[in-house]
Amino acid sequence: MKKSATYYVFSGANTPLSEFTSPIPTLKDGEILVNILYTTLCGSDLHTFCGLRNEPCPTILGHEIVGIIAQISPTHSGQDALGKQLHVGDLITWTVFSSDPNTTDYQPEIPQKNGNLYKYGHRQITEQDNFHGGLATHIILRPNTCIRILPKDISLAVAATINCAVATSAGALRLAGTIAGKNVHVAGIGLLGLVTIAMCKELGAKNIIASDVNPARLEMAKHFGASHTIDLRERENCALLEATTIDRFIDMSGSPDAMELGIETLGLHGRAMLVGAVFHQRPTKIDAEQVIRKMLTIKGLHNYNYTDFSFAVDFIINNWQKYPFESLIEREFPLDEVNAAIDYALTHKPIRAGLYMDSSTAKR
Amino acid sequence: MKKSATYYVFSGANTPLSEFTSPIPTLKDGEILVNILYTTLCGSDLHTFCGLRNEPCPTILGHEIVGIIAQISPTHSGQDALGKQLHVGDLITWTVFSSDPNTTDYQPEIPQKNGNLYKYGHRQITEQDNFHGGLATHIILRPNTCIRILPKDISLAVAATINCAVATSAGALRLAGTIAGKNVHVAGIGLLGLVTIAMCKELGAKNIIASDVNPARLEMAKHFGASHTIDLRERENCALLEATTIDRFIDMSGSPDAMELGIETLGLHGRAMLVGAVFHQRPTKIDAEQVIRKMLTIKGLHNYNYTDFSFAVDFIINNWQKYPFESLIEREFPLDEVNAAIDYALTHKPIRAGLYMDSSTAKR
Repeated sequence: MKKSATYYVFSGANTPLSEFTSPIPTLKDGEILVNILYTTLCGSDLHTFCGLRNEPCPTILGHEIVGIIAQISPTHSGQDALGKQLHVGDLITWTVFSSDPNTTDYQPEIPQKNGNLYKYGHRQITEQDNFHGGLATHIILRPNTCIRILPKDISLAVAATINCAVATSAGALRLAGTIAGKNVHVAGIGLLGLVTIAMCKELGAKNIIASDVNPARLEMAKHFGASHTIDLRERENCALLEATTIDRFIDMSGSPDAMELGIETLGLHGRAMLVGAVFHQRPTKIDAEQVIRKMLTIKGLHNYNYTDFSFAVDFIINNWQKYPFESLIEREFPLDEVNAAIDYALTHKPIRAGLYMDSSTAKR
Repeated sequence: MKKSATYYVFSGANTPLSEFTSPIPTLKDGEILVNILYTTLCGSDLHTFCGLRNEPCPTILGHEIVGIIAQISPTHSGQDALGKQLHVGDLITWTVFSSDPNTTDYQPEIPQKNGNLYKYGHRQITEQDNFHGGLATHIILRPNTCIRILPKDISLAVAATINCAVATSAGALRLAGTIAGKNVHVAGIGLLGLVTIAMCKELGAKNIIASDVNPARLEMAKHFGASHTIDLRERENCALLEATTIDRFIDMSGSPDAMELGIETLGLHGRAMLVGAVFHQRPTKIDAEQVIRKMLTIKGLHNYNYTDFSFAVDFIINNWQKYPFESLIEREFPLDEVNAAIDYALTHKPIRAGLYMDSSTAKR
């Protein structure tokens, strides 16, 4: 086992990350050391890099990660979420957070909102607290992190996205309730939108309408199961939403225009799940009379719970080859070219840019 | 049994109702003839009278009604919702709607939204379709009307309100989920607000905060279980909402200002039930980022389902003397003074004005 780890530190907006190497500390109670194999750059990593979000600095960004177990603390239960024995060398994914169920305000349905949360890729580096982000060769999983063993043949690039984009999409579908036989409108065709569409397809949705302002993204949506697409730049295209009884609206766009349209065009007893608007924007206007007369439900979702994570893992294990998920990691870079990867992601706006640890973990 | 019925016809906005007398028709399959004992004027009756709502004319207004069975069609099941045998002379309440479960778009959770609904107090009088409103001596209950027998000693004035205000409040609390131990904010202290407060009290809410712009109404709220009151005319009074983790917000006011404040001050995982805004008003602005980060739920409710109706009946049977419900019917009139009752209600804005059929059914 390696004795030291390399990591790339973010110290302020629009400043290239700096490489550091430090000895790997002795594991504390219940911890697991992971050799990172692949990390994908999430939109929120890029927002932080550009200064659109504030994270405590210095920090190690990156939370969409997959890796193999390098060491297990003897005081860890030694089991994954399904009760399977964990071994050194196992390929694993894990929740983006560690949430202590003994915290006073812990709510089982929303462990991700525990006041005392430990969130990977979102923490300040201190002398006592390091190795908690994905832009590194190693990460230490803290106690109360939910872990799942993955099959060895899975695409690492796709597997890296499970614990953020895929699990959040799973959360949106849990809140949506029944999807089978329903007409679903998904707005905002990034990774969350595409995953959501594929999940709706697998769950037996009747019609899946994808909307976005980017025609190339709408083309992608068709490959993930969208039955119809709407280019939101042209208002007359929205007639389809008026003509269809929309049962579920899932917003991954974060655009008030899209949210207003989606809520307004819901049918009787419809549900809107708001997921994308995790940044400051103008108020979203709703017609309360219509919310009442149509008996609508509007729900906000931030991150995901253990049920969602588990659904996401199973979904990707079963479907990663059925839909072109791997193509969504549009370009990949070795870890030591992380600054080039960030530049590329900001300039070209791919669905994802990936970072592999060495050529054996690259996608192709 | 009487052979003819008297009813008061609404033929257009702001025009006094006209008295008519017609023979009572032979009951059709599954119908029940009721001698009306008491009707309360609901806010929506007054809105229709003033032209703020459109109902098909001519019509018989009034849907908050209680009465005794005068005749039962031999093809009626002969049972109430609990399976109790119905008899001539039984005091009963019934759902404001008859909803045919064989209709194509029938959804069991929202029978009140059946496309083919028959709604008492909201129908045009035709030669074939009459005796369907509460401002009359008689009403004919159509098949698929959910009926409950009431104890004989109940206040008729209070019982009349069960099938609209009380049942709708019950619906709001069903959507609210757990109330025990929760901090609840109820905005809009009319009959629905007061009933909701009393229900929250009975369900074990931790704190019940009532808000309105009318200090007299806020005083009333205290008698129904409100632990705190907020006069919304003074913004600094709202500090209590900021300082408290509000778990449930129930809007009976229909005011966009109140709805915006209520949603904005919800705590983590809070739920907002919108009930009051059944009229056109300016858009309500929500901060989608906060809906997401706090994982809020916003639900619209219009009318109620059978579960809510049943809860409402039981609630009033058990609690009509525990809270000063009877005082909310602030003045009552004999039926033949219905135009005076409407004038009074419009001028004095009581919680309710009541109409009794003869002195034996008057409150006092």
